[in-house]
Amino acid sequence: MDNFTFYSPTDFVFGRGTENESGKYVKKYGGTKVLIHYGSGSVVRSGLLDRVKKSLEAEGIAYVELGGVQPNPRDTKIYEGIELCRKENVDFILSVGGGSCIDSAKGIAIGVLYDGDFWDFYERKANVEKALPIGTVLTIAAAGSEGSGASVVTKEDGMLKRDVGSDLLRPKFSILNPELMFTLPAYQTACGATDIMAHVFERYFTNTEEVEITDRLCEAVLLTMIKETPRVIADPENYGARANMMWAGTVAHNDIVGVGRSQDWNSHGIEHELSGLYDCAHGAGLAVIMPAWMEFVYKHDVNRFVQMATRVFGCELDEENPENTARAGIRAFRQFLHDIGMPINFTELGAKEEDIPVLVEKFGIGDGLTWGFVRLSAKDIAEIYKIAAHATL
Amino acid sequence: MDNFTFYSPTDFVFGRGTENESGKYVKKYGGTKVLIHYGSGSVVRSGLLDRVKKSLEAEGIAYVELGGVQPNPRDTKIYEGIELCRKENVDFILSVGGGSCIDSAKGIAIGVLYDGDFWDFYERKANVEKALPIGTVLTIAAAGSEGSGASVVTKEDGMLKRDVGSDLLRPKFSILNPELMFTLPAYQTACGATDIMAHVFERYFTNTEEVEITDRLCEAVLLTMIKETPRVIADPENYGARANMMWAGTVAHNDIVGVGRSQDWNSHGIEHELSGLYDCAHGAGLAVIMPAWMEFVYKHDVNRFVQMATRVFGCELDEENPENTARAGIRAFRQFLHDIGMPINFTELGAKEEDIPVLVEKFGIGDGLTWGFVRLSAKDIAEIYKIAAHATL
Repeated sequence: MDNFTFYSPTDFVFGRGTENESGKYVKKYGGTKVLIHYGSGSVVRSGLLDRVKKSLEAEGIAYVELGGVQPNPRDTKIYEGIELCRKENVDFILSVGGGSCIDSAKGIAIGVLYDGDFWDFYERKANVEKALPIGTVLTIAAAGSEGSGASVVTKEDGMLKRDVGSDLLRPKFSILNPELMFTLPAYQTACGATDIMAHVFERYFTNTEEVEITDRLCEAVLLTMIKETPRVIADPENYGARANMMWAGTVAHNDIVGVGRSQDWNSHGIEHELSGLYDCAHGAGLAVIMPAWMEFVYKHDVNRFVQMATRVFGCELDEENPENTARAGIRAFRQFLHDIGMPINFTELGAKEEDIPVLVEKFGIGDGLTWGFVRLSAKDIAEIYKIAAHATL
Repeated sequence: MDNFTFYSPTDFVFGRGTENESGKYVKKYGGTKVLIHYGSGSVVRSGLLDRVKKSLEAEGIAYVELGGVQPNPRDTKIYEGIELCRKENVDFILSVGGGSCIDSAKGIAIGVLYDGDFWDFYERKANVEKALPIGTVLTIAAAGSEGSGASVVTKEDGMLKRDVGSDLLRPKFSILNPELMFTLPAYQTACGATDIMAHVFERYFTNTEEVEITDRLCEAVLLTMIKETPRVIADPENYGARANMMWAGTVAHNDIVGVGRSQDWNSHGIEHELSGLYDCAHGAGLAVIMPAWMEFVYKHDVNRFVQMATRVFGCELDEENPENTARAGIRAFRQFLHDIGMPINFTELGAKEEDIPVLVEKFGIGDGLTWGFVRLSAKDIAEIYKIAAHATL
């Protein structure tokens, strides 16, 4: 196990009706003038936004609103938010929505208190030294941003997707009510589930030895997702199944399952070019890429893939040929993704094999290598896209 | 799943050599005059105390010292600490030791800022509204106090063991270096392991339904302990095994594995009377009590015990008679405790069957019932002591 620090100070408020405590928690963490930040009209139509406002009003807290955050959130909306916050002297940002909305709120939170262009933080030209406090009311289990210090934003000019991370961006509080997901379409639910599982796998595939506790915690989240995702898709208003999936999504990404070990985020990176080029859902792109990445790298550490196959997917160990077991685990994962309605190859995703050179070019690794479980060259990445293009069950 | 809040703001600093960062972290959390609180001479002899002092000096932080904390920490030492802190204008308490030392530090932290008797908090006569900040340098994986807001203290007059809990008592930071446990005797290591497993089981046995994520997280910690404890006992300087056990101990008790579900702390309560009467180690008492409690209650929810047996102890499911599987799981747990050197009955612990009426009397439930997975009467508790008295493999 490697040395590590783990700091997750977010106050998580979980359960039925908890959005009605938004005002109480904004007050607890010192907010007096709030920007309510949200995405689509669904939070308006469902009445959620009204309940949040009522809760703020009950505590005598003033607010302004900014909606319209898109999936894969854009820099343009963040500039708008920064300007509004400055004009209105906002001192607290409340995100009401999913991961895109939270990531946009985080961009605003660091931009408001910075003299330069907020994009500097995403280009590693500036370090986060202060940020407005933020809170979240989560509407989809997926990104884990409600419990992380990370934010991923797309610059419209060139469609560049970049990220920033700082403990200062960890939400002061996050409100998680599983009921808010009852109306989510099956496809979006499955995309969220895939993203959650990817967050775990990207920690699971490590070169660090002696990591039994985090291995087991990773497997705990994966086993939960394998049980709960089909239940949620079959029965969208199943509170218990939604609740398990929602808390699993937070645990998957606040890093408690990933501390003290090297991690591998290449699948996320390789996928980002797909959602960048085709504007597909991040989870759907991951469903296509992640098993392909596994097939490309499993020989690097067959034992680790055998562990995944036997502990997570219940495959039987082929003692004479463990590689068979490793491959069976990867097949089981792809089958699971298919069963929950995810695409498993380029055709199902709507991507084109002839675009592979463009995707590799945009990845931008040049003659170098990525970091991770297996360091990848441009040629390796092209090969992974190719496996993904043709994958079958 | 029940509604819950989860708040664990402690900054965990894990790994080799991290005690040398004590000063840096005291500074980060605003300490300018520190009380270094410790227990036995071992932290002096090992040179740990010197390294901590050097680290404080490097940051220009002044300190005073108070050693001599006993296992099952006493109120008398806390009065001494309160007086010293007031006299010396201490603004930060740094515990260097195990759970007893941390719990004593927490008692001092609330006592210093309170006009009345600090014992009021432990008697539920006062609510914690402020406390000095504390930090910890942990020397044994066991109590989980480094990541919890709880403190258990014994009042010498009458040997009353009482507890208090508040988020204000969660340490600002906790430093965990597995190397500091290399010199721990096997018996103390095993007592710590038993305490860690008990913290998980007391969350695992619940009447709340739809708790797959926390079930799986509980099982993750238990599986880790089953693998790592024998390795640590066979090879005390095995860093990897010590590291897994140490982080498991924190995860077991900061409540991430126990949120959103009813819990059962009767085994802890029933054990407290044993360590109160015989001054035995808490972990050793738990090894005797916990399987006996399981045997007494398993019929309340055979399925849950079957789940423990199959998922945690690898027992095969007897579909015709699941109770056999449940009992096999409990037997496997007792065998494990025996194998790591723990006592499994009164004789091995040094307790006497004829004291059972005294133990039940001290438990003090009268004509009432406890709370938990199965609510227990005085007669039930006597029966559990009796099972414990005669237990065999």
